[in-house]
Amino acid sequence: MSTSPGRLVVAGAGAVGLSVARAAAREGWTVTVCDPAPGSGASWVAGGMLAPVTEAWPGEEDLLALGLDSVARWPEFAARLSADAGADAGLHEQGTVVAATGSGDRAELTALAGYLTSLGRDVEQLTGRELRRLEPALGPEVRGGLSVPGDPSVDNRRLLAALRAAVDRAGATVDERAVEQVCDDGARVTGVRLAGGTVLAADAVVLAAGAYSSALHPSLDGLVRPVKGEILRLTRRAGALPPPSRTVRALVDGRPVYAVPRAVPGYGDLVVGATTAENGFDTDVTVGGVRDLLRDAERVLPGIGEYALTEAAAGLRPGSRDNLPLIGRTGPEGLVAATGHGRNGMLLVPVTAAAVAALLRGEDVPEPVRAADPRRFTPAAAGAHGKGDR
Amino acid sequence: MSTSPGRLVVAGAGAVGLSVARAAAREGWTVTVCDPAPGSGASWVAGGMLAPVTEAWPGEEDLLALGLDSVARWPEFAARLSADAGADAGLHEQGTVVAATGSGDRAELTALAGYLTSLGRDVEQLTGRELRRLEPALGPEVRGGLSVPGDPSVDNRRLLAALRAAVDRAGATVDERAVEQVCDDGARVTGVRLAGGTVLAADAVVLAAGAYSSALHPSLDGLVRPVKGEILRLTRRAGALPPPSRTVRALVDGRPVYAVPRAVPGYGDLVVGATTAENGFDTDVTVGGVRDLLRDAERVLPGIGEYALTEAAAGLRPGSRDNLPLIGRTGPEGLVAATGHGRNGMLLVPVTAAAVAALLRGEDVPEPVRAADPRRFTPAAAGAHGKGDR
Repeated sequence: MSTSPGRLVVAGAGAVGLSVARAAAREGWTVTVCDPAPGSGASWVAGGMLAPVTEAWPGEEDLLALGLDSVARWPEFAARLSADAGADAGLHEQGTVVAATGSGDRAELTALAGYLTSLGRDVEQLTGRELRRLEPALGPEVRGGLSVPGDPSVDNRRLLAALRAAVDRAGATVDERAVEQVCDDGARVTGVRLAGGTVLAADAVVLAAGAYSSALHPSLDGLVRPVKGEILRLTRRAGALPPPSRTVRALVDGRPVYAVPRAVPGYGDLVVGATTAENGFDTDVTVGGVRDLLRDAERVLPGIGEYALTEAAAGLRPGSRDNLPLIGRTGPEGLVAATGHGRNGMLLVPVTAAAVAALLRGEDVPEPVRAADPRRFTPAAAGAHGKGDR
Repeated sequence: MSTSPGRLVVAGAGAVGLSVARAAAREGWTVTVCDPAPGSGASWVAGGMLAPVTEAWPGEEDLLALGLDSVARWPEFAARLSADAGADAGLHEQGTVVAATGSGDRAELTALAGYLTSLGRDVEQLTGRELRRLEPALGPEVRGGLSVPGDPSVDNRRLLAALRAAVDRAGATVDERAVEQVCDDGARVTGVRLAGGTVLAADAVVLAAGAYSSALHPSLDGLVRPVKGEILRLTRRAGALPPPSRTVRALVDGRPVYAVPRAVPGYGDLVVGATTAENGFDTDVTVGGVRDLLRDAERVLPGIGEYALTEAAAGLRPGSRDNLPLIGRTGPEGLVAATGHGRNGMLLVPVTAAAVAALLRGEDVPEPVRAADPRRFTPAAAGAHGKGDR
């Protein structure tokens, strides 16, 4: 890895790619971010929950540690980004409530609360009435749940706008051509070949193309797959009840649904998501997906029936095999992966940018990022480039 | 009314306005069609059912007679338009099935069948099994219904494209400015004032601005109001069941829903509509509207859960006080109304164009159009310009 800044190509201008580009440009790299449609992929479609705790799952403690590290970085990351960009980065520091409807849903949340408490997390179990006192938008079918003040959200579209402005101000270039292939001389990267055939020379390349990352270098082959999510954007109409002030996550007869309010209007007042489907690079919004989201969200937040449905879209989460992202060196010298973030892309933006910046300086990644080393899936390579050289 | 063709302004470039413009241009008028967004209003959003029979309602025999007159004109109208435009006008001559789910819905359809039979219409009552033999896309909740072969449909977007091409070929001009006011000298029209202040001189003016018509001349004041309808467009995905081949109308627990298949792909395979709301010039698509349409349509056509939801839109039907349109002379000499078509705009396009062309020639309207005389709401004016002068 170069220890003095040179030419860097970042493949992918989503939230991760732009954050990496900004960090590298500030450290002296000459950065080109390549993306045929900057800021339009999963980052644009996302809900923007920053939910290390309420996304926690027993057995995924490495992911929880990584998420907690990143959520702690978010306030300073957002403040600095807002200042650099001259535009608000969209962090919404109200927390999250988790709502259960049926008895099975309540039992599941009680189990989650016990698990989180055992890990020392700040979680409070509440009755339906107590939840409605916090969030009057919750309907009578909500029988109980949790308050998780530590899981905030970000308006992903304000974030993308701020990142793009900051990247421009930092002097990085955005090239609206896709990276088709990483070029190397057998030992280290030499650049990238763009759609149309142009080769951009580079001393380092960061793969941040989300669900499209696996095709860019053989070392990521089969490690990142598209996981489709459908998501709706709702706008409050005159006469309709106000949206909740916190993120509302719910289990409705076992199906998860969430509603993330936007503090600043103009980008949709409430984001409702998200379905999960593994069907390749399919971004159709289906009748069944919209029907499920509306039905489940209305059971939890009945006032949204009067809202306008302003957008229905589908994005492709970059899924990894073990739900941990792929952040770290991969393949030839000078190549870094920053992908595979699954449903946690927005959450992990600050820690990913910090980790890649450290790697580009020749330093170690922050401790919780070690578990995300892409070489964990390639034991032979890990033997050659394993823990010892991080 | 002029009996020799002169300068004609048509306010509104929806299906009615374009059809009138085409007919007049072919008869020698120098036609300007004014619309700030041609072909984008209710005509664009419409489902395209041509349903005089299945829209029939006891007590609305004048409307049924008008619809039957117009549906009989449709095949020749479409054939001539297709030839003139060099593009298919989108007529889909498969008929309609009407499906009932609950026992109340079945009783209502039995009553409708009796009414239609008493009028001599071609209607066949069928069991659920018989309906599914006609249309295998119908689900098991359909318990019975009607086959109405005489109610076809039109792909409204192909129709608009063909009309626009035919209008251009006929030498009419489309001006993308809105008509703000009809100008007259106290006795007859002299032209129109456009947005921005330009005055277009004219010997005759046709008001075909749909729900926006009432504001254009005091003689229509309060006679046309917007009736919002939300409507969805679905596209079959790989692996999903085929759509029905006929229009499917259904009553689901008393709520009407319809699904109109498109014979030619590329404009959405199935159009599902429509809600009804009276809320002024509001074109928001609401959560409640989409939820109702999807729920009811899926109960009748369960395979559509796998379809893509490609569009959700709302249009404003031009509602009249008695559900009959307003077709005929109104206000000063030279002014003709062609509006107030409610949910029957597409159906009534051919008869409306024929009636307005007759008026512009100084002739009488076709017999069933007499009941649509706008002066029926202004008895004093009817005394001065009543039945005698048609």
